[in-house]
Amino acid sequence: MAEHRKPVIGVDLGGTKILAAVVEPDGAIRASAKRRTHAELGPVEVIARVIETARQAVTEAGLTIADVVAAGIGVPGPLDTTTGVVSHAPNMPGWENIPLGRKVSDVLGVPVYIENDVNVGTLGEYLFGAGRGMQDLVGIFVGTGVGGGIILNGALRRGYRHAAGEIGHMVVAAGGPYCGCGRQGCLEAVASRTAIERDLRAGVAAGRQHRLFEFAGPNLERLTSGVLVQAWQADCPLTREVIGRAQWYLGLHAASIINLIDPQLLVYGGGLVEAMGERFLAPIRTVAHQHVIQQSGPPVRLVTAELGDNAGVLGAAVIARQRHIGSS
Amino acid sequence: MAEHRKPVIGVDLGGTKILAAVVEPDGAIRASAKRRTHAELGPVEVIARVIETARQAVTEAGLTIADVVAAGIGVPGPLDTTTGVVSHAPNMPGWENIPLGRKVSDVLGVPVYIENDVNVGTLGEYLFGAGRGMQDLVGIFVGTGVGGGIILNGALRRGYRHAAGEIGHMVVAAGGPYCGCGRQGCLEAVASRTAIERDLRAGVAAGRQHRLFEFAGPNLERLTSGVLVQAWQADCPLTREVIGRAQWYLGLHAASIINLIDPQLLVYGGGLVEAMGERFLAPIRTVAHQHVIQQSGPPVRLVTAELGDNAGVLGAAVIARQRHIGSS
Repeated sequence: MAEHRKPVIGVDLGGTKILAAVVEPDGAIRASAKRRTHAELGPVEVIARVIETARQAVTEAGLTIADVVAAGIGVPGPLDTTTGVVSHAPNMPGWENIPLGRKVSDVLGVPVYIENDVNVGTLGEYLFGAGRGMQDLVGIFVGTGVGGGIILNGALRRGYRHAAGEIGHMVVAAGGPYCGCGRQGCLEAVASRTAIERDLRAGVAAGRQHRLFEFAGPNLERLTSGVLVQAWQADCPLTREVIGRAQWYLGLHAASIINLIDPQLLVYGGGLVEAMGERFLAPIRTVAHQHVIQQSGPPVRLVTAELGDNAGVLGAAVIARQRHIGSS
Repeated sequence: MAEHRKPVIGVDLGGTKILAAVVEPDGAIRASAKRRTHAELGPVEVIARVIETARQAVTEAGLTIADVVAAGIGVPGPLDTTTGVVSHAPNMPGWENIPLGRKVSDVLGVPVYIENDVNVGTLGEYLFGAGRGMQDLVGIFVGTGVGGGIILNGALRRGYRHAAGEIGHMVVAAGGPYCGCGRQGCLEAVASRTAIERDLRAGVAAGRQHRLFEFAGPNLERLTSGVLVQAWQADCPLTREVIGRAQWYLGLHAASIINLIDPQLLVYGGGLVEAMGERFLAPIRTVAHQHVIQQSGPPVRLVTAELGDNAGVLGAAVIARQRHIGSS
């Protein structure tokens, strides 16, 4: 069988779990496998687990490694796509200048290409999810932090220093709350789940009216996305206010992106978006459209991501296929 | 002589003046001409003045129209680059759906291509000014308003709805001052010369210490860019504070652009930048670099524009040449 018709392996390496899938050229997932990352065990063990997960997916697909042509891995944090070296992976102890691509390739016996996890997720949505048939897409992933990926005219915008897509650190609240990055007013400091949790705890401490104890426990020990949705649905006034503020900033942020680069589509993913769906997105869309300056033509669309967990493995498979073809 | 070696005409049609130049393929200006726009006379008269100015430049160059291959015109406001129709030109009465390209082409007898004036100025700086040899450039023009143009990987980013580059309406002061566009917190509402003038008048009215009467007259009737520079140089405390605040917002704005698309270069032009130069830009650069999240690699450069008035005619000439070649 011609190389370009063979399947590839897509791997999504996250701080919590590793997903691997054997993916056909048309994006069909032939089989997949999953295990916990156990990042606390360090890079050597995590790399071994990546290899095991990939092999398991190949076996589940009824194939051997000789049947696949390449592998792609989506990884959090700054990395060098050319050398396959991960400079640093936040939340993964010991990940400093780790030659992930070569280590996995040496054992698996196929070429391995790595890419930033958010770029990978954005590519997945672009080709097989909410962005199918679109020309531009900005992916906005709201979770513990806020990450993003940008595709303009069909091509991933990596940026001059390979630093594009740091949309969580666009400044939307000048002089506002401190961000985990040490700066003030970043989107992540006002709209991530971390920021929402901080504001909820502060509101409770300040004696604001709320219903969080019913859902999150007496010490707010279960402030998960799911719990936030429950409190929101139960009309908890504090939850409504805090999430509403995050949505307002996300709307202003969307408008700034649209006014700058005028993309065709903004796709929202991440824990809170997956849990709340359109109810989370609707107010963001309203604020965004109010703040877009050029109102002529069809409005830029803001939609929820479609692929959930699969965006990462599908995007990683695309990276594997594109780079392998580009290199051969 | 082969068509691609012939000169073209570049025209910069502004609300105040019309500039035209005969431009060689290497960007050399062979001759130029200039007259007042007299926008109050309406589109028919303004178009006649554009044609006269273009013809005068050709004559000054010792040529006839048969010697030039095409013309490009930079125009303020939304327009259709394909049909050559200007939808609307702010500050130019009567400019609603004016087929400028065809009108000028019918009389001059050469193909005429039109483009947004800020895109044209950005292209000029990219090819012949501060952006020579660069891969990306974001042009930021601070004047009565704040306009911008974007070149990524060598190509003008027009946007999906042809609405990219509205950087003056990126939201940098959420819930802040009203903008001329009717929205709140736009960059233009806190950092344009209009915003600076509003804040200076408010400061004077509020009895703040200042030295503006010495330079701007007893009713602040001469608050030009030149006067602002004089007051700034004389250490007028109100001027320093107000301009400093504009610079701070411009720095946050620059950081947001860098964190989003990671361009190689930001080029600043417009009245106040031309009047103050590096003194205006230095604090913007400092704030920007403080708020850029990825600090590895060479820092993104922020520089002042180099071409002044010539950016427009040079960029318009490039548009003429590129589109003419593309269409033939």
